[in-house]
Amino acid sequence: MIIILNESVTEEQIRHVAAKVEQLGLQPSISRGTYRTVIGVIGDETQLQSAPLAAIPGVAEVVPVMAPYKLASRTAHPKPTVVEVGRVKIGGGHLGMIAGPCAVENLQRMEAIAAAVRKSGANIFRGGAFKPRTSPYSFQGLGEEGLKILRDVGQKFGMPVVTEVVDPRQVDLVCQYADMLQLGARNMQNFALLTEVGRTNKPVLLKRGMSATIQDWLMSVEYVLSQGNSNVVLCERGIKGFDPATRNCFDVAAIPQVHKLSHLPVIVDPSHATGRPELIPACALAGVAAGADGVHIEVHDKPEEAMSDGPQALLPAQYGDLMDQLRKVAAAVGKQMS
Amino acid sequence: MIIILNESVTEEQIRHVAAKVEQLGLQPSISRGTYRTVIGVIGDETQLQSAPLAAIPGVAEVVPVMAPYKLASRTAHPKPTVVEVGRVKIGGGHLGMIAGPCAVENLQRMEAIAAAVRKSGANIFRGGAFKPRTSPYSFQGLGEEGLKILRDVGQKFGMPVVTEVVDPRQVDLVCQYADMLQLGARNMQNFALLTEVGRTNKPVLLKRGMSATIQDWLMSVEYVLSQGNSNVVLCERGIKGFDPATRNCFDVAAIPQVHKLSHLPVIVDPSHATGRPELIPACALAGVAAGADGVHIEVHDKPEEAMSDGPQALLPAQYGDLMDQLRKVAAAVGKQMS
Amino acid sequence: MIIILNESVTEEQIRHVAAKVEQLGLQPSISRGTYRTVIGVIGDETQLQSAPLAAIPGVAEVVPVMAPYKLASRTAHPKPTVVEVGRVKIGGGHLGMIAGPCAVENLQRMEAIAAAVRKSGANIFRGGAFKPRTSPYSFQGLGEEGLKILRDVGQKFGMPVVTEVVDPRQVDLVCQYADMLQLGARNMQNFALLTEVGRTNKPVLLKRGMSATIQDWLMSVEYVLSQGNSNVVLCERGIKGFDPATRNCFDVAAIPQVHKLSHLPVIVDPSHATGRPELIPACALAGVAAGADGVHIEVHDKPEEAMSDGPQALLPAQYGDLMDQLRKVAAAVGKQMS
Amino acid sequence: MIIILNESVTEEQIRHVAAKVEQLGLQPSISRGTYRTVIGVIGDETQLQSAPLAAIPGVAEVVPVMAPYKLASRTAHPKPTVVEVGRVKIGGGHLGMIAGPCAVENLQRMEAIAAAVRKSGANIFRGGAFKPRTSPYSFQGLGEEGLKILRDVGQKFGMPVVTEVVDPRQVDLVCQYADMLQLGARNMQNFALLTEVGRTNKPVLLKRGMSATIQDWLMSVEYVLSQGNSNVVLCERGIKGFDPATRNCFDVAAIPQVHKLSHLPVIVDPSHATGRPELIPACALAGVAAGADGVHIEVHDKPEEAMSDGPQALLPAQYGDLMDQLRKVAAAVGKQMS
Repeated sequence: MIIILNESVTEEQIRHVAAKVEQLGLQPSISRGTYRTVIGVIGDETQLQSAPLAAIPGVAEVVPVMAPYKLASRTAHPKPTVVEVGRVKIGGGHLGMIAGPCAVENLQRMEAIAAAVRKSGANIFRGGAFKPRTSPYSFQGLGEEGLKILRDVGQKFGMPVVTEVVDPRQVDLVCQYADMLQLGARNMQNFALLTEVGRTNKPVLLKRGMSATIQDWLMSVEYVLSQGNSNVVLCERGIKGFDPATRNCFDVAAIPQVHKLSHLPVIVDPSHATGRPELIPACALAGVAAGADGVHIEVHDKPEEAMSDGPQALLPAQYGDLMDQLRKVAAAVGKQMS
Repeated sequence: MIIILNESVTEEQIRHVAAKVEQLGLQPSISRGTYRTVIGVIGDETQLQSAPLAAIPGVAEVVPVMAPYKLASRTAHPKPTVVEVGRVKIGGGHLGMIAGPCAVENLQRMEAIAAAVRKSGANIFRGGAFKPRTSPYSFQGLGEEGLKILRDVGQKFGMPVVTEVVDPRQVDLVCQYADMLQLGARNMQNFALLTEVGRTNKPVLLKRGMSATIQDWLMSVEYVLSQGNSNVVLCERGIKGFDPATRNCFDVAAIPQVHKLSHLPVIVDPSHATGRPELIPACALAGVAAGADGVHIEVHDKPEEAMSDGPQALLPAQYGDLMDQLRKVAAAVGKQMS
Repeated sequence: MIIILNESVTEEQIRHVAAKVEQLGLQPSISRGTYRTVIGVIGDETQLQSAPLAAIPGVAEVVPVMAPYKLASRTAHPKPTVVEVGRVKIGGGHLGMIAGPCAVENLQRMEAIAAAVRKSGANIFRGGAFKPRTSPYSFQGLGEEGLKILRDVGQKFGMPVVTEVVDPRQVDLVCQYADMLQLGARNMQNFALLTEVGRTNKPVLLKRGMSATIQDWLMSVEYVLSQGNSNVVLCERGIKGFDPATRNCFDVAAIPQVHKLSHLPVIVDPSHATGRPELIPACALAGVAAGADGVHIEVHDKPEEAMSDGPQALLPAQYGDLMDQLRKVAAAVGKQMS
Repeated sequence: MIIILNESVTEEQIRHVAAKVEQLGLQPSISRGTYRTVIGVIGDETQLQSAPLAAIPGVAEVVPVMAPYKLASRTAHPKPTVVEVGRVKIGGGHLGMIAGPCAVENLQRMEAIAAAVRKSGANIFRGGAFKPRTSPYSFQGLGEEGLKILRDVGQKFGMPVVTEVVDPRQVDLVCQYADMLQLGARNMQNFALLTEVGRTNKPVLLKRGMSATIQDWLMSVEYVLSQGNSNVVLCERGIKGFDPATRNCFDVAAIPQVHKLSHLPVIVDPSHATGRPELIPACALAGVAAGADGVHIEVHDKPEEAMSDGPQALLPAQYGDLMDQLRKVAAAVGKQMS
């Protein structure tokens, strides 16, 4: 950690800052420049990251040199983690191809969609039973009934299932039915929920918050890991941008950034990132070319009847075509889709 | 609602869209332009807002003409709502001046800060007992012990108290001690929590999410109101911006926008909006000049020892000076600070 | 165009708006809904796009249904345009692989870099002679001397050359040496410069402005096309984002959006989009997978001595490795690199 | 300047970085921490700011401790600069109240608007003769004819005039008629234009670019100052935001930031910042309360006939009401409007 002092800092203030650093068990190294004095901190700065050093009179800026996350960091764990969802592996060359409708609607529809995506090569089935909806008047999901349908259809078609959990009080219930727990973008900093899923042994799919930096995101991962659950897959699903033409801005550069900073797998969700079916295939291909460990796509056989997010769903045939293209790009970057 | 069709839409598709509108109980009005056909929907469009009309083949765009929120809307309730927190009124010309430290730390510190801010004119006291921290390794708050201290200090100095609730399971507990429940920016779309506080009869302070549009924010308000709790005060606390020089971008234009669209009071929090003490006074003054119904400021008597957010706290003397200036600007815009 | 009126609009106001539409030579179609009245405009709305209809009392919102650009639009020109730079084709399946240093520094260095990138498969050589620098104290480019070096080196290694023009007074000079004129992000809405390059017959490389929507960008293209120069290649180079970890946010979804709306080719510049060499390969691969018509990369053989943007340059060997990977991904999406 | 090295940096790389610093005439101070080695640079770092130190192998990050601008900096010039436009002063307690239509349309209209805004207290008159329009098909301004009308009307009503210059080739012409030269947001980094206006002796009104940080903006100011023209007034006019409900996001915190970093005056333009007349008064009041040195407002007597930006213009009566309110807020913060 480097503490940059004000131009007008006094000797007494310098001594005070240095004393504060020592008091926290670390060693200050004072360097007096022509224009500014700087104090380098020798020792494990993570002990200092919560200390309000920037509030000390005379301090202009505090520059950390270590990442504030530990367990999520590649420094701590240089080899890529492979997360297993049922018998499906994600990471380390294995692609998790997640597909299904936004919401679980009914058994018949789920079976039709599952049959189609399975045939096209999806290996994990998705569907929401508890839906975080912007409007209190929108369909909120089928609840436990939806979980049952999801599990049964997944088993019938040989796919483990992932579904969203939105309330810490539901974690136990959802764990009874799901193979993987999804935390949505709006809950990326719901620390009560992160802590609760961290206490389970289920793999977690953690979507990036709409205004989260990569560091914010990895700090949320740290909440889960620090509870003992190390099976986290990150999911880039678009961040807030200024162009209303797309629902979000798909940040494909997040993929190499996560891979550089963390050992955990990261997949892409071009459905939410763009909100427009005509942009989904290009963004899915871009994600895999950039090194993503999987792709999450919403598929619906009758989007105009969908109870949630119909306008961004791909039709089963469109999904099939996309999977054929993804297979080629995956091979070009040295990965294999089953 | 207006449904704009594609240039290449077929007659059959037009009929299909019109049939869909009728099936949902509304009346389509087809208008064929030189380049585009457009279908106006006659009737209460809120029934259609969840329907995935944009997913129907031939539809280019769906333009709503009504707001998706009802109870929060000024159309539904033209007169400004005055929210009462204890004996303090917020809205309709009354200013809620909320002050206190980020976190409740201990009794002695709380008493010192409360005495100072009360003397300067604060009328509601704040302090966090459950802290939503970015890092799992940071101080997470004193919990119930903190709630007790906050309540006792508020009573001693004659100020009702507001504190944050971060977990739906804590709502009952927090209600036993607090006069007002705060929902933080990171929980603005925590729908489980919104629903739970909506079931209480406590006034709610709902901070704006970092990437929430005004409409997103009012939809979250709607979650609380639709549960029967109509005492909501909104709080602009800065949105995500591109300049790392400030913690957030203080969106002062949100004040007149909320006042135009909603009957509910809206206050400003320049402490979180800027994260830098030297910018807080100017932004507080700007907020009141723009019509805010109150100001939320973090104050600490020893910022360098603060257990949370010390670098953005004002000292009691700085707060006192600011309150003197705020009093003048409030008077200039026709409001009175007690 | 659709004119949505206020809830409280009067009959007189409705008549006034309708009269205004007729006065502009178009036909109004009034549709009275339960809550709102809407006026559809029948005829060529581009005549109305400059008219301040939203300023008429009673008007709530004006929703265009046609794009404000014409010549750039795919509607006007359904087949993809192929732009020729010397003998190199860009678009319609042909990839423009542009490489070279940020600035022209000296003959020897230019030759070394040109030899290396040519060998790796680059087909257009780049280098700045007039540099738009954030600081007036930074190196501003070699001017005409730089143009000469660039042209000579391009000819020696058999590559047409592209260089930036930053001032309308320099357009003629730059045209004497360059095969393609680049307009930088900061000049995307420098309308005097757009008009001037539109009067030449040189192909233009138009970078996207940092805060330009896709529509803003296509409107700038329209400035060039409307002057008679139809050889424009667009270049996505990152937009303003909120994460200071990267220089910009690489908007890969811009590729399919441009292809949907326009007939013109669009390439990617991951060097400026990310500003970090370790992220460039993943973003270049993503761009080609998403359908980009080329890739623009800054390459320098001694980045620590570069006179501009050294920290984001790839080394020649890194560029060579990347080109090998790009060749495979290009083939996977049905394109061929020479 | 502080150079933070990689965790895996070698001794040879450390020596190489230190040698580079010495070679540039400065003195390196090496500090070896437990996890990272850091090199502080002693001496005038502005010599190093253009050097690509971050490109040297082993360097993780370069943190400047001095601002890259000099002449614009408050360090260099602690007292506030007062800029004089004709006999009107801006800065140091004096408010520049600029008003007028977006574009100069004709003599009669200009006289009507000038009479109205003068009566309400405006002291500088504005109007565009060269308009930077997003569309090549929109009205581009009356050119020199417009400049003449603007000057004549300004003289008749006793107000100096400000108008935009968009092309370096027009600077001389505009100087013949205008008392102050405006550079628009889209030209904030048009370095050719900045240099050209820097060579004149006319006061300059420099609007902030839509995606410019405060530092970017002050660097553009530096271009003007470094040419010898020290009469620059900055203008905050809204930055790019994510909410399409407003045209831009009005960044009122820019006012105290500019005042902290620079000695130059800064005014606000709520017309462009919001694009919506109903939000302009609140934002104007906020700007003055935050310490702005003036307010720029677009006024038109018949917005629905305006040739540019009609929908965001205030009517003369609305402007008069706003000026009455501004007078009170100005007094509350210790400033006086004439």
